[in-house]
Amino acid sequence: MTILALTGGVGGAKLSLGLTHVLDPSEVIFVVNVGDDFEHFGLSISPDIDTLTYTLAGIVNESTGWGREDEAWDCLEELKRFEADTWFQLGDRDLALHLFRTGSIKRGRSLTEITEIICSRLGIKYRIVPVTDASLRTRVLTDQGSLAFQDYFVRLQCNPKVSKLEYHQRTPASLSPAIKTDQISGIVICPSNPFLSIDPILEVDEMRAILVEREFPVVAVSPIVGDRSIKGPTAKMMSELGMQVTCTGVARHYHEILDGYMIDNTDAHHTAEIEALGIRVRMAPSIMHTLDDKIQLASNCVDFLDELT
Amino acid sequence: MTILALTGGVGGAKLSLGLTHVLDPSEVIFVVNVGDDFEHFGLSISPDIDTLTYTLAGIVNESTGWGREDEAWDCLEELKRFEADTWFQLGDRDLALHLFRTGSIKRGRSLTEITEIICSRLGIKYRIVPVTDASLRTRVLTDQGSLAFQDYFVRLQCNPKVSKLEYHQRTPASLSPAIKTDQISGIVICPSNPFLSIDPILEVDEMRAILVEREFPVVAVSPIVGDRSIKGPTAKMMSELGMQVTCTGVARHYHEILDGYMIDNTDAHHTAEIEALGIRVRMAPSIMHTLDDKIQLASNCVDFLDELT
Repeated sequence: MTILALTGGVGGAKLSLGLTHVLDPSEVIFVVNVGDDFEHFGLSISPDIDTLTYTLAGIVNESTGWGREDEAWDCLEELKRFEADTWFQLGDRDLALHLFRTGSIKRGRSLTEITEIICSRLGIKYRIVPVTDASLRTRVLTDQGSLAFQDYFVRLQCNPKVSKLEYHQRTPASLSPAIKTDQISGIVICPSNPFLSIDPILEVDEMRAILVEREFPVVAVSPIVGDRSIKGPTAKMMSELGMQVTCTGVARHYHEILDGYMIDNTDAHHTAEIEALGIRVRMAPSIMHTLDDKIQLASNCVDFLDELT
Repeated sequence: MTILALTGGVGGAKLSLGLTHVLDPSEVIFVVNVGDDFEHFGLSISPDIDTLTYTLAGIVNESTGWGREDEAWDCLEELKRFEADTWFQLGDRDLALHLFRTGSIKRGRSLTEITEIICSRLGIKYRIVPVTDASLRTRVLTDQGSLAFQDYFVRLQCNPKVSKLEYHQRTPASLSPAIKTDQISGIVICPSNPFLSIDPILEVDEMRAILVEREFPVVAVSPIVGDRSIKGPTAKMMSELGMQVTCTGVARHYHEILDGYMIDNTDAHHTAEIEALGIRVRMAPSIMHTLDDKIQLASNCVDFLDELT
């Protein structure tokens, strides 16, 4: 039996790293968002998969939380001679992953297979799995029009005001074959952006069905601490979407699928209103600066799942 | 009126550099082979255009004759972790050109337009023009089967024995719109590989028609000096194709389209048999080590064209 950790982005990668210190490779599958995957200069880029891959391989840039450590930028510097569109940070070493992925897709390999090969070559013993091998793309409807995810997130640095999120599927996206739906013992929703990282995962019909029909517990970690997002535009987006910018706001967003919810100690005063939604609350330090912070939060999640089982 | 210089590969780029010291930008168009263009890891790569571009921009790797000077290899080193197919030398800076080209093609720009932009950004005042914007791909039929050009040339290092060349056109390739057929005053066929660099150019119907119906002279420079190729597999291929491996062998190959033929002084003894084909011969040092060698040979070509006009 395995726990699924639903993740995307830097916050999710941090908790995922913690989980690898608490669970064996057979006990957890990291199910990763693909809504922000895109094509750039003909390359197939999967930013959330790469962030997690670099994190678990121990080669992530610690100061940004994404990209490679010891990165070089000769290609991007040169590209600026020719091209204005150099807003996406393509490092020389990082490019190798995009080239390998793109070449492999052209040869007919699935994203699941490609990700498995990359993990294996980088010495990662844990399973990193894209939620689907199909095309599933987040579009952000804003006061500047309908934007592709990377246009919104990187090029325009989340400045446009968001009115709605859409998740476009070319054909109905089926779950990655690496996820065995009858072997799930629990789900952890990482403290990732609900709209940009988690909702696209839940858009896959089979994933949604698993959550509705489940006999195992689901626990989320709040990405909002003290009424702010720890990183990224979660709080800004919640405000623009007319939601209460608190951990409770996120709990309401997830309430149909949650059994338990982990909030930071500073948010203790929200406990009663969350429990009124029928969700059990556990408090624990949720800001992950050090590896110990990550391991401790991961350990709390796993304990909480055990309690709820 | 302009001279067309038909070119591909390192030998052609050397003479082309010489021609830029003899002719003004308005007086010459470099018409480049695209038969060895290919897709690699999803990138659109045009090796002959790039070799000439780097040469005329003064940033070519002088020791190899292709690729960038001051190149870095972080991406390729990293790619080797994932991929066995790292036979094509993708330098970090060189990659920028491939990314820009690939992205531009995806946006609907033609190879002619893209090449013009690249030249302009690299400060090249001369016109480098792909012979066609359409797909035209050289295939090499060998004792190891039918091979894509790069498989033969780079991956297998020209080792298979060649029996035939084929030039595949997805649709009949039309001449690049940058080549004005009524403004040509002469053609120089550079000392490039006849089968791999020049014949694919002549496969474009309009180019072949120009050569048949012309009222201007055509001069070629022999790529064979002293019964050897100066660089690359020309001599080996000629031998495998049952041709005489001499400058005369190449003259026979081109004889229908040549008015003049430049051979090296060491090949003086071939003069009579070449002139028997109805081709005028001029002797000049044809091995281009220094910039002066290139300029001198270019100057001889232009004088020879003048003489034949």
